[in-house]
Amino acid sequence: MNQVGKERVLTGDRVTGKLHLGHYAGSLQNRVHLQNKYDTMILLADIQALTTHFERPESISVHLREVALDYLAAGVDPNQATIFVQSMVPEIAELTVFFSMFVTVNALRHNPTVKAESKGSGLDELYYGFLGYPVSQAADIAFCKATVVPAGEDQLPHLELARKVTRRFNELYRPVFPEPRALISDSPRLVGTDGNAKMSKSLGNAIELASSSEELALKVRRAVTDPARVRKHDPGHPEVCPIYAYHKVFGADQAPEIRENCERGTIGCTECKRRITLTLDLLLEPMRERRARYAGKPDLVDEILIVGTRRARGIAKETLAEVREAMGLDYFRA
Amino acid sequence: MNQVGKERVLTGDRVTGKLHLGHYAGSLQNRVHLQNKYDTMILLADIQALTTHFERPESISVHLREVALDYLAAGVDPNQATIFVQSMVPEIAELTVFFSMFVTVNALRHNPTVKAESKGSGLDELYYGFLGYPVSQAADIAFCKATVVPAGEDQLPHLELARKVTRRFNELYRPVFPEPRALISDSPRLVGTDGNAKMSKSLGNAIELASSSEELALKVRRAVTDPARVRKHDPGHPEVCPIYAYHKVFGADQAPEIRENCERGTIGCTECKRRITLTLDLLLEPMRERRARYAGKPDLVDEILIVGTRRARGIAKETLAEVREAMGLDYFRA
Repeated sequence: MNQVGKERVLTGDRVTGKLHLGHYAGSLQNRVHLQNKYDTMILLADIQALTTHFERPESISVHLREVALDYLAAGVDPNQATIFVQSMVPEIAELTVFFSMFVTVNALRHNPTVKAESKGSGLDELYYGFLGYPVSQAADIAFCKATVVPAGEDQLPHLELARKVTRRFNELYRPVFPEPRALISDSPRLVGTDGNAKMSKSLGNAIELASSSEELALKVRRAVTDPARVRKHDPGHPEVCPIYAYHKVFGADQAPEIRENCERGTIGCTECKRRITLTLDLLLEPMRERRARYAGKPDLVDEILIVGTRRARGIAKETLAEVREAMGLDYFRA
Repeated sequence: MNQVGKERVLTGDRVTGKLHLGHYAGSLQNRVHLQNKYDTMILLADIQALTTHFERPESISVHLREVALDYLAAGVDPNQATIFVQSMVPEIAELTVFFSMFVTVNALRHNPTVKAESKGSGLDELYYGFLGYPVSQAADIAFCKATVVPAGEDQLPHLELARKVTRRFNELYRPVFPEPRALISDSPRLVGTDGNAKMSKSLGNAIELASSSEELALKVRRAVTDPARVRKHDPGHPEVCPIYAYHKVFGADQAPEIRENCERGTIGCTECKRRITLTLDLLLEPMRERRARYAGKPDLVDEILIVGTRRARGIAKETLAEVREAMGLDYFRA
């Protein structure tokens, strides 16, 4: 319990690129809804970004501020939520080192993400830091004693490891950490404009939250639709069409009508795309406005991150003092 | 270059038990000799001790002060050398996390110590922190930009990894770290009182530096000698006898004579043991005095560790500022 008795949520993103509609639908929208209810801590995960981007850290510096702008644009209220920078809370690194004592290599390599990555090259070729990023995630959650972690299905194994690690710590030393629970998001993964199951910047199939009206229109125009539908009056198969997927997620009201007309061949792809462009433009327009307001005040954005990080660090220091005491490492207590 | 132009040495011990004659012969004696010549940093490696002792951290707290007393007793001068506590320099944990980005699991498992440990159970059963302790050692050396690391033959692979890691960092980002070189000790491993090739507390075959005259005499009396020598006048084989090994290391002057008499059967084991007891008692007596002096002033010992750690931390903060700048993680530079 924190901020006047609210439960604490830990959430965040790797700062490897601007956020897109997939992030919005999958987590960001939900964060904005929850920021009243929970003491929301939002992590700009630059250290975790380094596990895969250590050869080009300059991109992290740029994306840190872009992702912060995405948050603010999407409606995260810096007076309610705490946005902070992972690398500026060194206590997270300390906690990672402590936790790494009692997690086996075995437990880490069975993490599905690590498993997928090591499939081609084998465990040996993995970087040590990458292998251990679930330990670092456990530290992200534990340092602020978050009790709630919003997670998609694919992140549940990470959270399970975090639960195991904190439980083990509590058993070995003294109960310091609450066991975090998942707040399972029911929003499915958002399909990319190319029909790939996942919208992802690195696949080039993403619509960024910062898109202008023109960029948005272009992305939608170029998006694939039902490939079986050659002529306007051919009956369509909306369930295989990314455009219909966007209607479902972002314009639920009109989706049934779109579906019906598509299946009957009474609405063409051009018209269908025009309508989703309109819907998305209405969604993005207030974000663009907020974004422009904050982007014009870079010092204010920096200040938000500095203040947020200061708060996170204060919490981290308190937790680490408890950790040291529990482990008997507080040698020179006054 | 540091302390008025002296090169910096990094050395230290895991704080898992009191130090013994093996430590003295292998490294401690040398440190005392070198403390004039080098800016000597001596690490009380409590975090590294945790990689194997995380289930009983209370022993670390006790041994931290005992090992510090061993240093002071052996003649380490706190006005010349900097004795500091690893866990109290969190920048080492940060550097460990940074370095872990670009070290492969492969490079770590080929470390001979890790290899030996994983032989029985396989890589999977290793703890993640234990697998990575050579990364943590690289951070120990790098945070203070030590250029010289005293090392026995068996530690050279660790140092080679530290050299690779710092070189890689310098290539990836900017030259921040000097490449440390080994100061190879020519003192061989000291044999245990049971004849085991390594004197080790956990094998119960060690003579602690803190031994009283009585404890010393008892340990020597119970030590094995040449098993082929049944009667006093049987010719002995000094090269298989731990007692002769101690004569060679701690009483080099009289060793040739001992050897000759042993081989001829003109000195008995009892007499030979009496003489090494005398030699060792002369070595340990001034240590006991210094130890008693410091042990009577626990606040002074704490103060020495606090002051040393403060100096180490100051150095660490400077290095980490350079590291963040080199990696582009200094987002909010004034």
